[in-house]
Amino acid sequence: MAGNHNGERKAAVRNGSSRSTERKTAKKNGQKNGRVKHERPSGNGAPAAGSLFVIGGAEDRQDTKIILSRLAERIGSGKLVVSTLASEYGEELWDIYRKLFSSMGVKHIKHLGINHRDESLKDPRLGILADATAVFFTGGDQLKITTRLGGTTLSERIEEIYRRGGIIGGTSAGATALGEMMLVGSPGGGISKVGDMLHMTPGLGLAKNMIIDQHFSERGRIRRLLGAVAQNPRMLGVGIDEDTAVVMESDGMFYALGSGAVYVVDGHELNYTNISEASFSRALSVFGVKLHVLSSGDRFDVHSRQPAHIASGVEDSEEELQLIEGEIM
Amino acid sequence: MAGNHNGERKAAVRNGSSRSTERKTAKKNGQKNGRVKHERPSGNGAPAAGSLFVIGGAEDRQDTKIILSRLAERIGSGKLVVSTLASEYGEELWDIYRKLFSSMGVKHIKHLGINHRDESLKDPRLGILADATAVFFTGGDQLKITTRLGGTTLSERIEEIYRRGGIIGGTSAGATALGEMMLVGSPGGGISKVGDMLHMTPGLGLAKNMIIDQHFSERGRIRRLLGAVAQNPRMLGVGIDEDTAVVMESDGMFYALGSGAVYVVDGHELNYTNISEASFSRALSVFGVKLHVLSSGDRFDVHSRQPAHIASGVEDSEEELQLIEGEIM
Repeated sequence: MAGNHNGERKAAVRNGSSRSTERKTAKKNGQKNGRVKHERPSGNGAPAAGSLFVIGGAEDRQDTKIILSRLAERIGSGKLVVSTLASEYGEELWDIYRKLFSSMGVKHIKHLGINHRDESLKDPRLGILADATAVFFTGGDQLKITTRLGGTTLSERIEEIYRRGGIIGGTSAGATALGEMMLVGSPGGGISKVGDMLHMTPGLGLAKNMIIDQHFSERGRIRRLLGAVAQNPRMLGVGIDEDTAVVMESDGMFYALGSGAVYVVDGHELNYTNISEASFSRALSVFGVKLHVLSSGDRFDVHSRQPAHIASGVEDSEEELQLIEGEIM
Repeated sequence: MAGNHNGERKAAVRNGSSRSTERKTAKKNGQKNGRVKHERPSGNGAPAAGSLFVIGGAEDRQDTKIILSRLAERIGSGKLVVSTLASEYGEELWDIYRKLFSSMGVKHIKHLGINHRDESLKDPRLGILADATAVFFTGGDQLKITTRLGGTTLSERIEEIYRRGGIIGGTSAGATALGEMMLVGSPGGGISKVGDMLHMTPGLGLAKNMIIDQHFSERGRIRRLLGAVAQNPRMLGVGIDEDTAVVMESDGMFYALGSGAVYVVDGHELNYTNISEASFSRALSVFGVKLHVLSSGDRFDVHSRQPAHIASGVEDSEEELQLIEGEIM
């Protein structure tokens, strides 16, 4: 989603830069749940033990439900919290996903819905997250997630679940929010000038060194992802098609799942861009980007930045088929 | 454009494969114009001495007219033939481009409009091309160009103009037709399965070893171009945005011109694709593609497959500004 949110964007940037202040506030608010340890954000410590389910939006909810089934299977008997922070239609989305996950065997589900940042500051609702093993962010507007959640105790609690081996998932805006940086603003297709590229803001930062974009092929977003990567090639660009997911494991490998493709934009060998020099009205130049297109079952090693094809495409299909059959019967 | 043209596609393939037969027919029809020498197609001989103006469609015709002005300047006092073979609205397009090029100082302009292949076989109209130094293909459907023109004496005459130093231009479908292979069929955005990628057919072949795609960012065509390159990485994929052109010179260099970007897809280091193995219903995998995005003034060397940024962006802009001023006054 994400239209023009200048006001909100500024707020998000403020939230990002005042992280330590927020953490102090959080401490002042007290930790009602004894489980919480205030560890450093995971970028500075050991890698998180959990997994990320990053979905490019419009995942199938009617038919084969390949992605959501796999997620439900992984959650198993654990407790899932569905966050509808990205949307003004939280109750409706909660209703949809509650029924979906219930039908797929997830028994313990709670709803995290916050419409204003104030709410979480006044009442952190940490109880909802108590003993949760999975958190799923629905779609909407990624800036609503970061402005409502960024730097709060709730956010730290979610990060802790991830660090301790839980599963954090998100679809559409909920996927983008998991990245270290988020693209906001132009819907993608219309971006052609250097000046259009600069609308980035910090995400929740669970997927380190990554910028995640969704509805990727469907909305012609390769250009904006290239522009984002060109600004700092440290970031890996991950563009995810609809009904397609990236499952990131704690060992630094991720794999593609679903009916579409995952575009990995690696700018480490990028040797020229005009993004810092050219006038804002100029078109973008980027030379020497490496591009990988992954389909279901393909792997990518974040450390070596190498894709790998596991010659088990047939098995994958069979596994998917079993999931489908399990769903139908 | 290009919808589903199974019938026409088959015809085009037949034309492509029966080239030698057509050449014999052409000889039988006689060379009314004494200038013609029947050289080998340029792929087998010395590189052509001419230039190609390959435009991604929707070039500005009202305002700055940067691309068409540059083309008109290059044509100068030469003779331009406007081909409307791609369209059923040939007369309307001829009227538009005749006025445009006239207003930009091109004095000698002729129209080449053929609605059926029969016409050119019965009456090759070689006189229209006599002494022409430039040929411009308007938009429409690239398959109409190749089915009407492929393998005819007219086509050889156009190739000869190019070989001898003339300028061949094309916009939209007219741009695609200049490539060695053309993408036809799906409009681009909807392509996600391996089976969707296979709709390629031979182009006029003036841009050797290239597949040209147009309206590129605007119609989200990166996926189909990747699929096309994956099928045979010998082909360089060149995706051109609207109001953007690639000017290919005889030395194997091309440069970008206009307001958008040019995407160069180089598959020489491609190390895996599932396009030959996977079932048609699977999404595409392509690992290790090199991608360059060029904006106005950027160069690309087809032989070394290296882009180059000429630090003369300012001069380019000034040059464009002069063209604009020349247009206004």
